[in-house]
Amino acid sequence: MPEKVIQVDVAGAAPAYERIVNAVRMMLVSGAFQPGDQLPTVRQLAMDLGVHHNTVAEAYRLLAQEGWLDLKRGRGATVLMRPYPSPTPEAQSQFARSLDELVAKARAAGLPQGAIAEYLDSLVTRLRSGGGK
Amino acid sequence: MPEKVIQVDVAGAAPAYERIVNAVRMMLVSGAFQPGDQLPTVRQLAMDLGVHHNTVAEAYRLLAQEGWLDLKRGRGATVLMRPYPSPTPEAQSQFARSLDELVAKARAAGLPQGAIAEYLDSLVTRLRSGGGK
Repeated sequence: MPEKVIQVDVAGAAPAYERIVNAVRMMLVSGAFQPGDQLPTVRQLAMDLGVHHNTVAEAYRLLAQEGWLDLKRGRGATVLMRPYPSPTPEAQSQFARSLDELVAKARAAGLPQGAIAEYLDSLVTRLRSGGGK
Repeated sequence: MPEKVIQVDVAGAAPAYERIVNAVRMMLVSGAFQPGDQLPTVRQLAMDLGVHHNTVAEAYRLLAQEGWLDLKRGRGATVLMRPYPSPTPEAQSQFARSLDELVAKARAAGLPQGAIAEYLDSLVTRLRSGGGK
């Protein structure tokens, strides 16, 4: 079984544990990690990313809390079968607000509205062709 | 001149200063605040939002660093004429990555791909009809 590499850009504004959570969650949602898969050990991933092992442990803990991982002392992190929850109204408004904030940030950084729209468009196409629910 | 109200949902995961920055930045980008406008004083906004005044001061300091505000002791925060910078390649890839992360988060929270695509679509329409650069 070829190993799946977790790549995380640990530089930047967000805390490192949050970036790890985001990167692994993307791999879980996209199906790059499947139920039953073993994630790298905390120690291994910490070494690979050059971060403190507490940082990785915190990221795994949060992913376990979201229902993605089974953490057993000495047995590492196993990906769980996780049914999609029913979306709460809060999750929906949180998504809309975060998206608006992100677009405002991109415009403030000088990205033209046209370029932003184009990227959103390509994402819509990707989502619609991805099938799924 | 009718006062513009800065509304910030200070509950939730992101630190309060970050939420204030995001909310004010949206108002700046959308033109709700114009160059020359006075923002509420730190003390006033802190009282309105029910946060410590250091939290608001930090938010204003970050917005000033981004070039949006002129902060003068005792004279409050004045909105500056801020030209849009040239977007760096980092800003573009940061936007794309943050967007991908946000969509993965929304899917993990149970939002159906169709609903996410629909919201992105409506945002594209808003951006394209908004004119501007």
